[in-house]
Amino acid sequence: MSMLVVRSVTEVRAQIAQWRRTGDNIAVVPTMGALHEGHLSLVRSAKGRAKRVIVTLFVNPTQFNNAEDLAKYPRDEASDIARLDAEHVDMLFAPDVAEMYPEGFATKVSVSRLSEGLCGAHRPGHFDGVATVVTKLLLQTQADSAFFGEKDYQQLSVIRRLARDLDIPVEIVGVPTVREADGLAMSSRNVRLSETARKQAPAMAEALRAAGAAIEAGQPVSSATDTAKTTLLTAGYSQVEYLELRDAETLEPISKLDRPARLLAAGWLDGVRLIDNIAVLPAH
Amino acid sequence: MSMLVVRSVTEVRAQIAQWRRTGDNIAVVPTMGALHEGHLSLVRSAKGRAKRVIVTLFVNPTQFNNAEDLAKYPRDEASDIARLDAEHVDMLFAPDVAEMYPEGFATKVSVSRLSEGLCGAHRPGHFDGVATVVTKLLLQTQADSAFFGEKDYQQLSVIRRLARDLDIPVEIVGVPTVREADGLAMSSRNVRLSETARKQAPAMAEALRAAGAAIEAGQPVSSATDTAKTTLLTAGYSQVEYLELRDAETLEPISKLDRPARLLAAGWLDGVRLIDNIAVLPAH
Repeated sequence: MSMLVVRSVTEVRAQIAQWRRTGDNIAVVPTMGALHEGHLSLVRSAKGRAKRVIVTLFVNPTQFNNAEDLAKYPRDEASDIARLDAEHVDMLFAPDVAEMYPEGFATKVSVSRLSEGLCGAHRPGHFDGVATVVTKLLLQTQADSAFFGEKDYQQLSVIRRLARDLDIPVEIVGVPTVREADGLAMSSRNVRLSETARKQAPAMAEALRAAGAAIEAGQPVSSATDTAKTTLLTAGYSQVEYLELRDAETLEPISKLDRPARLLAAGWLDGVRLIDNIAVLPAH
Repeated sequence: MSMLVVRSVTEVRAQIAQWRRTGDNIAVVPTMGALHEGHLSLVRSAKGRAKRVIVTLFVNPTQFNNAEDLAKYPRDEASDIARLDAEHVDMLFAPDVAEMYPEGFATKVSVSRLSEGLCGAHRPGHFDGVATVVTKLLLQTQADSAFFGEKDYQQLSVIRRLARDLDIPVEIVGVPTVREADGLAMSSRNVRLSETARKQAPAMAEALRAAGAAIEAGQPVSSATDTAKTTLLTAGYSQVEYLELRDAETLEPISKLDRPARLLAAGWLDGVRLIDNIAVLPAH
């Protein structure tokens, strides 16, 4: 194995100082492990941009508003390491909780507005946890670029905002969602679905696609989103937390497709919370 | 004049990139202007530590909980520039509010516990404003070291904490308070005192000194602080917001001098809010 596996910020800093001396630029791909093709797509994008790629693996407890979700979050570090090594990642930074949040830790980064609706409304504190840990990871690795999946679109928006607002000298790069052959957005949580639920799950991607196409074709937004919600419940989802059209940049609710928009959804299937989103664009 | 005066983060970054290419290390001294000898002491400490010194001048609106205090905050940029140039400062970064908080700005850095008592209890939101703007200034300038006065001891503690917690690659250096000949801690707000109040003002430094000495000599903490509060009110202060012994690192209240401590006070004199603090140390 040629990939370095490091556990401390001190080791990360020592290695990046060495890379910096030879002028290597650095990209970081923050993950919570349980890696799938979506993560590997981030890694490949990062490899295309920077000489050195650091992947971070940290299941961040402060972004879980639900203890059961944290406990059930899939973990398989050995398999993750093998996959990343095969992708020729330079370093895996996999700190433990005490390394990230030592005794006395007291600082929080929060992003108003962008964090408030959608997932933020259903997962109190979630985006504060994300914003704080991502700020730390960006500053620990001092990367020139950082790669995040569009699958977590609200998260990507929050991260773009905090990086700009705090003047973190990094480029935030969003990477398109990778999907299974049947359209289901790849997610580490998909492994928790039963066989039956796994077959029902792609209904979310399909409902979004259909609603997005209807809105682009001129159907009123609320009628298209109502239809999509009904489709999800009929397909086996037990609950739709939200299914909404939002401004693609500010994430403010919009009722008319007069600018680039995003259609975003979250729902529960078989006790698992799934999310997805797609671009919805006005005609030129 | 040899000092660069820049207004934008882009210009700061371009200049520091040039300095970095020749291996120069960089120190930053964040200020709100209205510079006095206390600030110049920070500048001289910074000059002793780094090849390049950046002073920032930004009267940060988000850390003023009181609009009148913000409006009355003394400003004299031309005089500040002349003083800094005479100290051979390399760069003054003096952004306007729109450069620091462009439209859509939404991110806040907050530090729990350390921010909560003392000044934090009397100035709601103050330390969130400080923490956010200092995070920005540290990341904008990418300085190796940053210099802050011990006069604002709670602020210094909050900044040490956030720099450590967010893994900002900077050394935070505290510099001892500079005092007038009569003991008054230098502050930009001192110019707002009437001639009479200016003569009464040193009572705070003297009361702290006496109480600190009494505590070090074994007097009970509450008796020493009660005496000091009475002294201040007798001397002409209209109100004592707090006068308390705290753990020097965590700022937790302590009732017994069993570790390094800090005695901190805030009070109102002639409509001006003044603060001061001193070290109080247990016998070896």
